[in-house]
Amino acid sequence: MAIELYWGSGSPFAWRVMLTLEIKNLPYESKLLEFSKGEHKAPAYLKLNPRGKVPTLKDGDFVVYESVAIMAYLDRKYPDPPIFGKTPEEAGLIWRVISECESYLVGEGNKVVRPMFFGKGLDHVEEIQQAAQTIRQELKTIDARLARSNWLVSEQISAADITVFPLVQLLLRAASKEAARSFNLGLLPLPETYPSIARWVQRIEALPNYQRTYPPHWR
Amino acid sequence: MAIELYWGSGSPFAWRVMLTLEIKNLPYESKLLEFSKGEHKAPAYLKLNPRGKVPTLKDGDFVVYESVAIMAYLDRKYPDPPIFGKTPEEAGLIWRVISECESYLVGEGNKVVRPMFFGKGLDHVEEIQQAAQTIRQELKTIDARLARSNWLVSEQISAADITVFPLVQLLLRAASKEAARSFNLGLLPLPETYPSIARWVQRIEALPNYQRTYPPHWR
Repeated sequence: MAIELYWGSGSPFAWRVMLTLEIKNLPYESKLLEFSKGEHKAPAYLKLNPRGKVPTLKDGDFVVYESVAIMAYLDRKYPDPPIFGKTPEEAGLIWRVISECESYLVGEGNKVVRPMFFGKGLDHVEEIQQAAQTIRQELKTIDARLARSNWLVSEQISAADITVFPLVQLLLRAASKEAARSFNLGLLPLPETYPSIARWVQRIEALPNYQRTYPPHWR
Repeated sequence: MAIELYWGSGSPFAWRVMLTLEIKNLPYESKLLEFSKGEHKAPAYLKLNPRGKVPTLKDGDFVVYESVAIMAYLDRKYPDPPIFGKTPEEAGLIWRVISECESYLVGEGNKVVRPMFFGKGLDHVEEIQQAAQTIRQELKTIDARLARSNWLVSEQISAADITVFPLVQLLLRAASKEAARSFNLGLLPLPETYPSIARWVQRIEALPNYQRTYPPHWR
């Protein structure tokens, strides 16, 4: 049976899994859920994922959700090419970058992305500015790392890059929105603010089949 | 060279790594940092971990931090017994429970634990009550899972149990504090609120060398 991926356009978490599937060259059946129609909260989907979030992966009879867990599953099931490192040390550093992304970037990112995309909470100026400052600090660390190496941890693309990349894209898109103009987020233009991240983004955009993973409603 | 573990008493994240080391029967040198003396922000420690957080693990020349990353490293380096599952499916489910814990329990837990332990923000009643409600919902899911099986995912203790357990202990300790009395947190007494979690806690407390992992200042 084919792999089925339930996803939503613009979800950075779903994007991680799509990149993983493309990098591993795994064919899959795309199940695009329309958030606007509430398809991620429909009873049939809640049976697969009681939290009503995306992504969810179904591989034969096996169902798993939470993006990083799906990536870990796919890497154990289809290890070529490995995305969690070739050595215990690489694995440790990859998971460190993933943990840091989830703990220090995702939550703060939401505080900036949501107001810019949906216009809600734009009056929480101090909270947005504080979140933007944390984001800039995290991106600075990431940029410094990418100044020394093409990829975040090992000599090839790993789960660390795949985890961070969609969030960076989401932040850049939020920063380009009309609503972001009155905030001095300090993220754009990327080649000036974070030149090594800018080159890394281009590197990922040049991957085979990258275009298949790009959120359709962003075009 | 021996493994060195930098930790702080009462950190649930450090506790995860200590449990991992004991379960894998790995000897290690304990480097207890005193938060009250700011030892986790001292220059020598910041060289190991620029975030000034615990835990940090040093294994020979290799340094890694972020609790879940340390667990992943240790499991790849010292695979016996495995804590991330014997099959890709087990691995996926273990990582799912870990992701859920980090995304839905840690942050909400902090909103309850910090006021109860340090007395700050006790006037944010609504925030605390809302966090407590989320926590109860997550614990209910965990309790239901443990009603069907001794351990959260596989037939033996896994990284899922090790990740969740110290947070549960921290929440129970917060709920037993004087400051928690005026809040109806609904966590205690555990054998009544979450009977399967209560038995699981006893199961973990009965592990060999469990006592060596228990926060010294909690005694």
